[in-house]
Amino acid sequence: MSLDFRTWMKNTQENCEQALSEYIPQCDIVPQQLHEAMRYAALDGGKRVRPLLVFAAGRLFNAPEELLSRAACAVEMIHAYSLVHDDMPCMDDDELRRGKPTVHVKYDEATALLVGDALQAQAFIVLSEGNGDAQMKLSMVRVLAQASGSVGMCGGQAIDLASVGLALSREQLEQMHRLKTGALLRASVLLGAMSGKTLSSSETEALYAYSAAIGLAFQVVDDILDATADSATLGKTAGKDAADNKPTYVSLLGLSASQTLAAQLCNDAHNALLPFGENAQYLHDLADLIVQRQA
Amino acid sequence: MSLDFRTWMKNTQENCEQALSEYIPQCDIVPQQLHEAMRYAALDGGKRVRPLLVFAAGRLFNAPEELLSRAACAVEMIHAYSLVHDDMPCMDDDELRRGKPTVHVKYDEATALLVGDALQAQAFIVLSEGNGDAQMKLSMVRVLAQASGSVGMCGGQAIDLASVGLALSREQLEQMHRLKTGALLRASVLLGAMSGKTLSSSETEALYAYSAAIGLAFQVVDDILDATADSATLGKTAGKDAADNKPTYVSLLGLSASQTLAAQLCNDAHNALLPFGENAQYLHDLADLIVQRQA
Repeated sequence: MSLDFRTWMKNTQENCEQALSEYIPQCDIVPQQLHEAMRYAALDGGKRVRPLLVFAAGRLFNAPEELLSRAACAVEMIHAYSLVHDDMPCMDDDELRRGKPTVHVKYDEATALLVGDALQAQAFIVLSEGNGDAQMKLSMVRVLAQASGSVGMCGGQAIDLASVGLALSREQLEQMHRLKTGALLRASVLLGAMSGKTLSSSETEALYAYSAAIGLAFQVVDDILDATADSATLGKTAGKDAADNKPTYVSLLGLSASQTLAAQLCNDAHNALLPFGENAQYLHDLADLIVQRQA
Repeated sequence: MSLDFRTWMKNTQENCEQALSEYIPQCDIVPQQLHEAMRYAALDGGKRVRPLLVFAAGRLFNAPEELLSRAACAVEMIHAYSLVHDDMPCMDDDELRRGKPTVHVKYDEATALLVGDALQAQAFIVLSEGNGDAQMKLSMVRVLAQASGSVGMCGGQAIDLASVGLALSREQLEQMHRLKTGALLRASVLLGAMSGKTLSSSETEALYAYSAAIGLAFQVVDDILDATADSATLGKTAGKDAADNKPTYVSLLGLSASQTLAAQLCNDAHNALLPFGENAQYLHDLADLIVQRQA
């Protein structure tokens, strides 16, 4: 008997918060200020979409809790570090994140740089420690590193930076997002599933299709919210992409077509899950959540 | 029959350069500019001290070439990323590195930030791909991540930043360097040795003692060179630590006592290697090199 989605989600978010708090060194460990700032960056905030994907995908093959918890925290640390660096003055220069001052505002730029660097390392510490089959865990390290690096998230950010002020085609926009946010979302789904068993090629393909659909949906909805919501609801500066003259789905397709696209991608995600039957229920519900979120 | 040290060193440096060039994505792979900048940061420069330590330690237990090459490149990528971030305006604000403009000068700050981030991820990609025993490689990922993170290199940089203008005791200075540069040098030695076999506790202890000695010696000599050499010889701005009012061994102990300390640490390093006999010859010679280097 499964928990209803909202209860499961709340439990998972709480467990993830607690695990993150354990997996990031405590504030009394030297260097104290760095650890305090790492905890400031990673704890107490965020929707934990990536950890939710890890845990939901872990249910496909009955993956062990500890490994899922490590994978979820590792992905979230990569995500958190990318936000810290992304917010720095030389990148997006944002002062507000999840309703709180960004790390370089709360501390300083040098600390923000080191917090990001150390959180990335911490992700690989967490994933390489603990129990579990070594071959499986080494594959997970590889998946996470590839998703984070120059042909994953960092690469997407580089393309994003280079594209400010340019008239991107829809294909170019998609490629950028497939790397910038898509790669880590896909890694989340893969890491969860891989924690349970070695994936067959058809399973991998189905999970790729699901991830591709929710990854794009996530970005389309981000663009819709940036254009329609206010800063207080978002917990970050709204309308910033348009002000920065960054290409978005809304600027490219218009608001209404963007909303239709999001709904269609959600449907694609649901269809990709059909081979997994009932075990995929939470992944199914997460696709809904991603498209229906208000922040 | 072993190669003489200088020939071995030259061969190893060349092999490492070639391996790095293979392990960092080529300039024609998207995003091209990011890959070009990553290559600019990591190729064509440096003494490759860490790769030399990896390969020299690999000879202790006859470790396979491919694994050593991956470990050496992974450590060097971590080192290269740390230099790129360290040189940024919010950190040391250096314009010259290995006689070339630093990455943020040659490109821009945002690119430098991403180059560092992506090189860190690339280190874990390289270490997690390829052949070799999974348990061994997972342990190597763990050693490298721990040495890079908040209780390793990043932690040392945080302490360094916080100590500018403060009167550090010799113990505090040592603790800072043990993390800032020592952790990665120790990881280099461990990774090389671990590539050959699972280490016994007495082997680990001996390698720790060797690493601690060369790690401190490395820093003492760095401080001596910063105080005595010119920028052209160093390939970076000389006298910068003193100008920045950073504590150094020379400011703390004086030049002559610093030189005595370096010689003594070199001797400690040699003694730590005695249990390994002739297989440790290159590690022995590397301790000499670290103390006798002119840049």
